[in-house]
Parts: sequence; structure tokens; C-alpha cells
Amino acid sequence: MKDVAARAGVGLKTVSRVVNGEQGVSVDTEHRVREAITALGFRRNDSARTLRKGRTASIGLVLEDLADPFYAPLSRAVEEVARAHGALLINGSSAESPEREQELVLALCARRVDGLVIIPAGDDHRYLTPEIDAGVAVTFVDRAPGLIEADVVRSDSYGGAREGTAHLLAHGHRRVGFLGDQPHIQTATERLRGYRDAMAESGLPVDPAWTSLGPTDPERISAETRRMLTGPRPVTALFAGNNRTTVTVVRELAAHQGPPVALMGFDDFELAELLTPPVSVVAQDPAQLGRTAAELLFRRLDGVTEPPRQLTLPIRLVARGSGELHPYE
Amino acid sequence: MKDVAARAGVGLKTVSRVVNGEQGVSVDTEHRVREAITALGFRRNDSARTLRKGRTASIGLVLEDLADPFYAPLSRAVEEVARAHGALLINGSSAESPEREQELVLALCARRVDGLVIIPAGDDHRYLTPEIDAGVAVTFVDRAPGLIEADVVRSDSYGGAREGTAHLLAHGHRRVGFLGDQPHIQTATERLRGYRDAMAESGLPVDPAWTSLGPTDPERISAETRRMLTGPRPVTALFAGNNRTTVTVVRELAAHQGPPVALMGFDDFELAELLTPPVSVVAQDPAQLGRTAAELLFRRLDGVTEPPRQLTLPIRLVARGSGELHPYE
Repeated sequence: MKDVAARAGVGLKTVSRVVNGEQGVSVDTEHRVREAITALGFRRNDSARTLRKGRTASIGLVLEDLADPFYAPLSRAVEEVARAHGALLINGSSAESPEREQELVLALCARRVDGLVIIPAGDDHRYLTPEIDAGVAVTFVDRAPGLIEADVVRSDSYGGAREGTAHLLAHGHRRVGFLGDQPHIQTATERLRGYRDAMAESGLPVDPAWTSLGPTDPERISAETRRMLTGPRPVTALFAGNNRTTVTVVRELAAHQGPPVALMGFDDFELAELLTPPVSVVAQDPAQLGRTAAELLFRRLDGVTEPPRQLTLPIRLVARGSGELHPYE
Repeated sequence: MKDVAARAGVGLKTVSRVVNGEQGVSVDTEHRVREAITALGFRRNDSARTLRKGRTASIGLVLEDLADPFYAPLSRAVEEVARAHGALLINGSSAESPEREQELVLALCARRVDGLVIIPAGDDHRYLTPEIDAGVAVTFVDRAPGLIEADVVRSDSYGGAREGTAHLLAHGHRRVGFLGDQPHIQTATERLRGYRDAMAESGLPVDPAWTSLGPTDPERISAETRRMLTGPRPVTALFAGNNRTTVTVVRELAAHQGPPVALMGFDDFELAELLTPPVSVVAQDPAQLGRTAAELLFRRLDGVTEPPRQLTLPIRLVARGSGELHPYE
């Protein structure tokens, strides 16, 4: 620790603060300390490791939104695997903020979790390197980490969006709209790419007015839905990029005057089968995502040292009615 | 600590394990240690308290089921209040097990959370006394704690069920079924009491076949729904005791052959307004429950020492169609 402090030009207390994820250290100083740690290969001392062993084993799960029902079965699956391994699960939410993700992850490490399952909000995870070196196991779910190598479990966002869009085209649609999440979110751009490739494979041009990436708040999604349904070249079908978006589009279509509009959603959601028409989706299996990630994590905690693994889980097309409507003209 | 060890007839290490919520202590021994702690008024030493202050402030939230969407807005509201106070939120689930609730609460205390918001699974919370004495603030939500005094924020379960049942009776129903959660859950028995009082106030007898408390898994709820809809005195309306139950009843009624059955649910749920018929509910405000509980918690952390408060939030009747159907005969 003395060497780290000397190299970073700070006091021992500051190094300790950074290592323990405490507040009161400027971003700049923290960066210098982390660089020194990485350069010197510093590890936590043994007494810290022993303390960890004396306690109930625990793993942390960092989500991006506590209120998104997509994460409910994922969280429960991680919890079930943790319980089967005699470990407690503690959760936190990054609220889609990279700073908050880092703050939360380091706070959980300071509270001596043995491992972490992370749905990343940020795209630079080098801040985790000292923790991983100190023995914390890390697995990423839904999105890949940035600038570090680690186990990743994802759904086939590209393939799912491509298959869902092709399904709409197979029912005769030529003007299909795509409503997605913010462009810095990997799954959003992967799904847009799947939509574009499906259109291209059918030889169909994509009018710029038919695609929209951005926040998934109901106001924006409703306004974009209305916009795509009007104007000189309105869409006859919509692809909604995640379950929050789909639910808003369903509400908007229920209030829409005019002929029925076809809809495919990415992600299944509760009661989709009881709506009028029932909503067709390309479904991820969030429980399987969580289960797989947690099992990978416990393999690492059991000492398996194979290179980082990248797993992609298939999606499943569920045809219920809304995606099989033919174009109204 | 020596005095506690002597009084309990155990070693210092055992006392430390109990205080830190570690494993490897028998229930009996833990009980003896806790009694000795209570008797002697033991408090954590100051160095532990100082450590706590040096770190990012954090509060814990203990839910009973990560997969119940009722808790999503509640969790997010607690998180928003925590963030406004510069604190992190870490969550965990008791999975409706008193043992797991205690294990999780003590593990969070051992990880030095400053306060806890708890939806209790158990009915004996004396295990929290040493933590509260050591300065951890605790607020309960949705259900009251057992054998300790603490702040509690609840919805008016009794009043909501009574009003919802009376609403069905006002539309002409005389045979109303009640489907509730397990009888050891306070909210389940409070809601049953509200149903019974509404029936009694209208001078209506309650056939034992019309009420059913138990686990809310879809298999049991579906079977009980079907049972109440058949036989010599079938119900013409149903009151579903929480959102998980209502969703299952909606599915069962959609598949049901015969005249339409009226339905009121306790708790609102997503897309209720787009079903056929739209589902009427008596709605709690889970975000307001979470917000109120978190604000009470931060008042305690700010040093407010008033006696424990018991707050009851009102429910709101939302008439959408299913609860206004008249009896079919």
C-alpha cells in the first residue's frame, strides 16, 4: 500500500479510501490511485480475505432499473442459484447511470460480497480490475462489459429483432416502424441492426422516419408511435424494442383511430395473451439469463479458471395475433 | 463482550458471530447470547461506529418476493429517497421465510447499513433489538413487526377490502367469493375481515365454500376459482386479495364457459385497463408506501427520537368494468 501511495503521490488513507470504495476522493485522485494499483499489482492483505471467509457468503446483483418487470424473474433466478449455494443475494440498481453503477459495485465490494452479477450501465469497467485481482468473481448479463474481459450471458438481440421483423414482412408488411431504447445501450443498437438486416433481406428501403432510438418513457414512445402512424408514408406495423416500449405502444394503439396496426414486441410481458388482439413477441428467457449467469459466477467462485466465456441464449417467437395482422391496405 | 460471553456461558468468538450475523451458531446458543446482550445493554464498540461513518451511507430494503411487481414501484421509491439523501440502497428478498428474513437483515447489518426498510415475513423481530440499540434505524412496511416497537407504514387493507366488497354488493351481488393469501400474513386476514364485515353489513351470510386463504400459486388459485364458480351455490362475483391472485383469476375467467363473473382485485396492476372487461380494483399506492417508509427512516437517521409511528395510507377504488357487472341471474 505504501508503494501505491508513493506512486500515486497520495497518503495511505487515500489509498485505503479508494480500495474500500469510500467517498471523499476526487475522480482524478481515484484514477491515479487505481493506475498505481494496476501497475503494481496490489492485492488486499490477507486479513481482509480472512474476514470475508468468516461471514455468510453473499453475492451482489446490479440491475439497471428496479421497476422494469423484465428483471423480476432474472433476479429471482439469481437468488435461487445463490440460495442453492448457501449464499445470500443483495441487489442494487444503477438507474442506467455509469457513475451510480460504479459507486454501487464498489460499495458492494467494500461490504465484502464474494461475487457480482452485473447488468452494466457503463462502458468502462476497468474500475473492477483491483476487485477482480482481490478475488471478487464477476459475471455480466444482458450487455457486455467495457475494456475488461469477463463472463457474459446475453440473449440474441440481433437474431430476435431480425426474426421478429421478418415475421411482420412475411405477413405482407412493407412499411415497418422500429421503436428502440437509447443508442448507447448495446441491446438497442443490436436490435435495430436486426430490424435493418431483415428489411434489407426483403429488398425494402428504410425511411429514416420509421426508426427511433431514445429514452423509453411513455411520453416519447407515445409521440413517436403517433408520428409513425401519420404523415405521407405511415407504417402498417411496428416493432417495439423492449417490454416497457411494447406496453406503451399497446396503450397507444388501443386509443388509435383507424385500421388495426400490426405489432411485434421484443420481450414477453404479463397478460400479453389476454389483450385484444393478443400481442405477439420475440421472447427472451430472463430467468434462464439469470440462472446461467449465476451458475457461471459460482463456477468461478469454486475456482474454475478457464478463459472468460461469452454465452448467447436463443429467443423464441410467440405468435399470438398482433404480429399476424395483415397490412390494412 | 466478556460479560455477555460469561452470562451466556459461551466464548468471545461466539458472541462476535452472533453480533455480526455470521453462521455456525445454533439457534439455542444465539438465543442465550441475545438474551445476555439485552440484559446487559451491550453496544457495539465505538470503532465499529466510526468505520460506519467513514463509508458511503447505505440503507437496506428487505422484500418478500423479488418477482412480485407490487414491489417494483415501492423499491424504486425507496431508492429515490435514499439517493436524495446521498445514500445507496441495497435490496434482498426473504422469499416469505422468517428465517431467511432474519439471516438477510443481520447480514445487511453486519455489512454496516445505516438503516433498514423491512417488509416482514416473520412475527418475532426481537432479533433486531441489539442492532437498533447499536444505532441501526428500522422502518416496517406493509405489515407490522412482532414483539418490538418500530415505525410502520401500511395500506388500509381492511378498509379497502370492505369497500371493494361493498361495491360488488351495490351492483346486486349476493354470493361473493374471496380468494386470499396465507392466513399467517397480516394483510390477508385483514382483507378477509373487510370482506366479512361488508357482507355482514348487507345482512348476507358467508358460505364457508366462498372464502379461501392459502398460497397464491396459480394452480391453487385457478382450482379454487373453478370450485367457487360451480356447485349448488356458485358465486356471481369474486374479490381477489392481491395482484398475483387477480392476474390468475383474470386468466381463469377468460377461459371460463358461462355468463360473465364480476371481479374486484386488491392492488392495481399493469394493463388492467386494457383487458376485456377492464378490471376494477381497490388500489394501494406502492410508491407512496415506499416513499413514506424511507422518509420516516431518514428522519430517524437524522436523529428524530419521537415514539414509533403507525401510518395507514388510504386505498382508492378504481371502477373500470369488471366490478360493475351485474349478477347473471
